[in-house]
Amino acid sequence: MARAIIAGGGVLPGLLLQAGPAHVVRLEGVESAPLDAPDIPARFEQLGKLFADLGTAGVRDLVFAGALSRPALDPGQMDAETAALMPRLVSAMGQGDDALLREIAAIFEAQDFRILGALDLRPDLAAEPGPICGAPGAAQGTDAARARAVLDALGPLDVGQAAVAARGQVIGIETLQGTDAMLRFVGASRPGSGGVLVKRPKPSQDLRMDTPAIGPDTVMKAAEAGLSGIEVAAGAVLILDRAATEAACDAAGMALWAAP
Amino acid sequence: MARAIIAGGGVLPGLLLQAGPAHVVRLEGVESAPLDAPDIPARFEQLGKLFADLGTAGVRDLVFAGALSRPALDPGQMDAETAALMPRLVSAMGQGDDALLREIAAIFEAQDFRILGALDLRPDLAAEPGPICGAPGAAQGTDAARARAVLDALGPLDVGQAAVAARGQVIGIETLQGTDAMLRFVGASRPGSGGVLVKRPKPSQDLRMDTPAIGPDTVMKAAEAGLSGIEVAAGAVLILDRAATEAACDAAGMALWAAP
Repeated sequence: MARAIIAGGGVLPGLLLQAGPAHVVRLEGVESAPLDAPDIPARFEQLGKLFADLGTAGVRDLVFAGALSRPALDPGQMDAETAALMPRLVSAMGQGDDALLREIAAIFEAQDFRILGALDLRPDLAAEPGPICGAPGAAQGTDAARARAVLDALGPLDVGQAAVAARGQVIGIETLQGTDAMLRFVGASRPGSGGVLVKRPKPSQDLRMDTPAIGPDTVMKAAEAGLSGIEVAAGAVLILDRAATEAACDAAGMALWAAP
Repeated sequence: MARAIIAGGGVLPGLLLQAGPAHVVRLEGVESAPLDAPDIPARFEQLGKLFADLGTAGVRDLVFAGALSRPALDPGQMDAETAALMPRLVSAMGQGDDALLREIAAIFEAQDFRILGALDLRPDLAAEPGPICGAPGAAQGTDAARARAVLDALGPLDVGQAAVAARGQVIGIETLQGTDAMLRFVGASRPGSGGVLVKRPKPSQDLRMDTPAIGPDTVMKAAEAGLSGIEVAAGAVLILDRAATEAACDAAGMALWAAP
C-alpha cells in the first residue's frame, strides 16, 4: 500500500519524503515546496474527492506534515462529504487546534486510512537525551526546571507547548499564538538577558498530527529574545535540519539539549 | 500612633491618604505625586535612617502604596543597617518580586512596625461580587472560566496574576513583565477579537505589600487588545478611580465584573 504526505509549509514534507516514496497531497491555498513525488491536488472543501483520489492512488498511510493554516472555505466548492462533516469540524474548531486535529484524524481513520506521525517515519529527527550543542550550566538547569514546572502545571488544561524562564523567573508562556510570537514578546518586554526556552508537547497532544519542532530559525529567534539555552523533550520534538540548527547554536552561543 | 505611606507611583498614595492623616515616605528616585501631608524623605540605601525618622515621627503603621521600581543602589550612600540587610535582600531578589516584598515586610516588622495593606485602609476600593459595568454574557463567562483555570493551575508556582481567553482559547498569560505587557502582546498577536481578561492575586501573594489593581488605563489597554470583558477577584483587586473606570468601560463597550 502506498503512502501520502499531506504537505503543509516548511521543510518537513521534504524530510519525510526521504523516508521512502510517497504521494504528496497539495491543498489549495497552502504554500508547499516542490518535491520529486507524484502530486495529489486537493481542496479543504472537497474531502470526498480527496478520499477517492487517495483510494485510486492506492494510499493507506497518511502523514500530516508542516503547518496547515485554517483557510476560509468556499461553500460553492464544497462536496457532499465535506458538507456532512462540517458540524463535527466546526464543533471541534471551537475547542482549539488540538481538538480539531484529533477530529481530522478520526475522520480519515473512519475512511480506513492509517495516520502516521512524522516521528514514525523519521525517528532520527528527534534528539536522544543529552547535550546537542554545548551543555546547560547550573543556572540554565534551574531556569529549565522552572519553565518545565509551568508546562507541567498547564498540561492538563491543554495549554502551553513552550515556556521561558530567566534567573528563576518565568518571562514567557506560550499561548494559542505559538512559540515565535512568545519569543517576540519575551525579546520586546523582558528585563536583562539570558534564560532558557523549554519546548515539549502537551500531554494531550496527538504527536501524529502535530509534532513540536525547532530549527535554525527557532535558535535565531531565541537569540534575538536574549536567551542562552533551549531544552527540547527527547524523542518528541523534531529538530528540522540538525546541521543548520547546530551551526546556528554555535553562531549564537546558544546551548541546546534534550531532556527525558 | 501615626501612620506612614511608602509612596510609589500612581494615584494609590493619594487614595490612601483619604483614609486618614499619614506621613508620606518619598524614596529618592521614585516618582510620586505631591500630597498634602508631611514628607519623610528616604533612600533605599539608608534603611537605618528611615527606621529612625519613622520612629521620630511616631509612626507605627506602614502602608506600601503603588509601584516601587528596583533601583540601582549606590554603595557610597549605604548605611550600616542597610549593608547588614543586603544578604537577605539579594537572596530574596533572586526568588522573585513576591519573595522580595515578603522579605521587606519581615524587615520592617522586625523593627516593630505594623504593615497594613491598601485594602485595610480602603476596603471600598475593591468590588463586591457582581456586575460593575454591564454583565458578562455566556461566552464571556466561558472565557473567564478558562482564564481562571489557567491562573488556578499556575498559582502554586507563584506565577500569573492575570490571563486572557477568547472563544475558549488562552491567548495571554501574565509573566514577570506584568499585565500591561501581556495586553500589548495579546493586541499585537491575537487572531480575531473579543475575550476576557481575568485579574486576581496569586494565592501566595502578600496583599498587604502588593495588591493587584485596575483602573481606566487597564480598561483602555484591554480594549486596545480587542477584549470585551474584564473580571476581577471580588475583595482582592483595587479599582483605582471607580468613576473613571466605569466611564472608560462605557466608552469602550467593555463589561467589568467581580467574581468571588
